[in-house]
Amino acid sequence: MEMIEPVEWRGTATSGTLWMIDQAALPQTERWIECRTSTEVAARIRDMTVRGAPAIGIAAAYGSVLASREPKPTDGLDALAASRPTAVNLFWAVEAMRPLLSSGPERCLEQARAIHRSDVENNRRMGATGAERLRDGMNVLTHCNAGPLATGGYGTALGVIFAAIEQGKRIHVWVDETRPRLQGARLTAWELTRAKVPCTLICDNMSASLMRAGRIDACVTGADRITRTGDTANKIGTYGVAVLAKHHGLPFYVAAPRSTFDLSLSDGAAIPIEERATSEVTDDRAGRLAAEGITAYNPSFDVTPAALISAIFTERGAIDPVTAERVSAVLES
Amino acid sequence: MEMIEPVEWRGTATSGTLWMIDQAALPQTERWIECRTSTEVAARIRDMTVRGAPAIGIAAAYGSVLASREPKPTDGLDALAASRPTAVNLFWAVEAMRPLLSSGPERCLEQARAIHRSDVENNRRMGATGAERLRDGMNVLTHCNAGPLATGGYGTALGVIFAAIEQGKRIHVWVDETRPRLQGARLTAWELTRAKVPCTLICDNMSASLMRAGRIDACVTGADRITRTGDTANKIGTYGVAVLAKHHGLPFYVAAPRSTFDLSLSDGAAIPIEERATSEVTDDRAGRLAAEGITAYNPSFDVTPAALISAIFTERGAIDPVTAERVSAVLES
Repeated sequence: MEMIEPVEWRGTATSGTLWMIDQAALPQTERWIECRTSTEVAARIRDMTVRGAPAIGIAAAYGSVLASREPKPTDGLDALAASRPTAVNLFWAVEAMRPLLSSGPERCLEQARAIHRSDVENNRRMGATGAERLRDGMNVLTHCNAGPLATGGYGTALGVIFAAIEQGKRIHVWVDETRPRLQGARLTAWELTRAKVPCTLICDNMSASLMRAGRIDACVTGADRITRTGDTANKIGTYGVAVLAKHHGLPFYVAAPRSTFDLSLSDGAAIPIEERATSEVTDDRAGRLAAEGITAYNPSFDVTPAALISAIFTERGAIDPVTAERVSAVLES
Repeated sequence: MEMIEPVEWRGTATSGTLWMIDQAALPQTERWIECRTSTEVAARIRDMTVRGAPAIGIAAAYGSVLASREPKPTDGLDALAASRPTAVNLFWAVEAMRPLLSSGPERCLEQARAIHRSDVENNRRMGATGAERLRDGMNVLTHCNAGPLATGGYGTALGVIFAAIEQGKRIHVWVDETRPRLQGARLTAWELTRAKVPCTLICDNMSASLMRAGRIDACVTGADRITRTGDTANKIGTYGVAVLAKHHGLPFYVAAPRSTFDLSLSDGAAIPIEERATSEVTDDRAGRLAAEGITAYNPSFDVTPAALISAIFTERGAIDPVTAERVSAVLES
């Protein structure tokens, strides 16, 4: 399967720039945007031109190459780190780049490319691990977008599905549209149809009755931050899917690389949850849709406690059961 | 509180017509549409100009007055009955009108007005019953629209909330936007803000994390059809809310009049579930939004089993616990 890579460094370390596909414009428009400064990269992370925890980390790594050429490299790095609060891959990438800033752009680009390459390899490894849990003929629900666009170019949750298909299994995917920004309808649907994976789009509120009807066999999502106990922050709505899966006796899986773990945190309640503009909820592309006068609440993420997660697939193997001991054992293996 | 009545007969029985507020155009446009024939009423039920199980029943009752003036009254009635498949109030109203068809439009209008008046009175009665379960300061989640627009003019689920407020209780309402047709964002939000009830709009996938955070104290919805065992069909997504409420130990209430019960059915699985155009899921007002090539699934309703419902509020009292015995005892009281 040929996969899109959502961020791409073009040119040399000293004069090249970072290009990213504009994920806010997909699937209607396939447009690439150039970032010439670290400030521009931070702005494109903030406005979700690039989104998805691993992809944000990679964009920040390349953004650090730009920062290394600027008068105040550390300010550039700090701006990148401040662009979004929840996904920890961003901070991980920034800190991986920080010691190299003074070594010049060549060394920084080498490191950013290594982070990018390693993300794709890790995706394939966790995909192979997760695919063992999917059987031929399964119907798999996914929420939000955790495919090539959200990563270096293969996918965490969708990586598991792609790997199962590459193993010859027939998989049908139920795609949660994922309100309010509709990453499922716009991005996951785009990736799956391009890859010719059988899939059906649903509204987020439809999966419960599909589970009850026996039409969903497993759920798999990505993650934005995982604590050392396995509590997992991911796109708003993920926690509800996990509760529904539990109620119906279905496995709920998370696929995420080591860089998504924040071992400094124990309790998921400590993960900062970004709130975005309420217009994401009240408006559609034609303007205001909700009744005037009502305010909306728009948290971008929620936290699924470890107890509701059947397994977490990482590049170092499956964490199963999801306990602090297993997190530690697998990540240190 | 002054309430809107979504359907209104204007003029005499022999020359008058049925007017309805166009709920598909709300809240942006407040437009009244005239129906001069029973066929037009059936078309306006089908295209959701009027929606909400009790309001559909009342519209069909007035539509029968028009049918009684037409060359083939029975054909008119049958067309009304065939306009939508899930809400049973429609069939109930049509059958209540059928014996009067030959008695002429005056008698029919008298009966339709009685059905309409009785619906509002019943709403107030079930509102008072349900309001006893809401305490001052509560945060109440509702899904879809079960307010004045969905009924004769007061509301089933919102009737419970209005009644609690009229009792002097402070209630804050979390309004599920209710994909795909956004009746929550468009209609419930419009009704609550007009009535100055504190409320906040959320996407359907956000209630789970609000429940976990202790920010929802109870859920209340309307219903489209209830079996004699208490299994309840309502807007898609209702079942998921009920499962989430159960998981978090919160009460999940349904408010519905006697006319919503279909005592011919035992198991909720026997309730026919309407599927609507997939463009409701794939498009917004600006056109296609989902990736090309993906198909969508769009059931309009789901079924919540009785075991997940804490109580059903009817005009004859609360059904609690929700069992076949209690359904029968309360409805026959």
